[in-house]
Amino acid sequence: MQATSDVDQTCGMSIAIDVVGGKWKMHLMWVLAEGPVRFGQIRRKLDGVSEKVLAENLRQMEASGVVHRELYAEVPPRVEYSLTPLGESLSVALKPLEDWGDQHRDAILSRE
Amino acid sequence: MQATSDVDQTCGMSIAIDVVGGKWKMHLMWVLAEGPVRFGQIRRKLDGVSEKVLAENLRQMEASGVVHRELYAEVPPRVEYSLTPLGESLSVALKPLEDWGDQHRDAILSRE
Repeated sequence: MQATSDVDQTCGMSIAIDVVGGKWKMHLMWVLAEGPVRFGQIRRKLDGVSEKVLAENLRQMEASGVVHRELYAEVPPRVEYSLTPLGESLSVALKPLEDWGDQHRDAILSRE
Repeated sequence: MQATSDVDQTCGMSIAIDVVGGKWKMHLMWVLAEGPVRFGQIRRKLDGVSEKVLAENLRQMEASGVVHRELYAEVPPRVEYSLTPLGESLSVALKPLEDWGDQHRDAILSRE
């Protein structure tokens, strides 16, 4: 008998996990959904993320096509991050998950 | 000025991330949505997960109230994992994310 994996690495959930897997990326989607933000603003909103990890996550989300990085040639230069149209559609797809958390907050927190 | 975090740790997305944060838990939700499964079956479906990590993730999801572990007193004993009603509702909330991945598969895979 040949051992094979049943996971189709291109199934929808695998693709989505590639893009928002890990806790920071889902938090980032939530922060970015509110509109363009600067790096420092994101860091203040995400308690506990290091500069290095935040930069890496934003780069990966830019590579996935869900985040846009805009550099404004000011002094000092200003960089803003926002969702691309693909990112906006992902944000919409994540909304039911956020609503689920809201609806079941008490049941889940009471177990912790 | 006092530095404070804007993240409400009890917001819906934070709760959801607590429950399904990390790549294995979202994969696990996807596997468990198909019905009760045994530990070995899950391992075969999730390519690359170690026994230790899988057991830990299942324990955490049981603690969150989304996974039920049933022990059948057979010889040898049989253990099956399934979604609780809370887990079923989470599975429904994750569906749009899976659909998003399906819909944008080509756009995302072409960037990798």
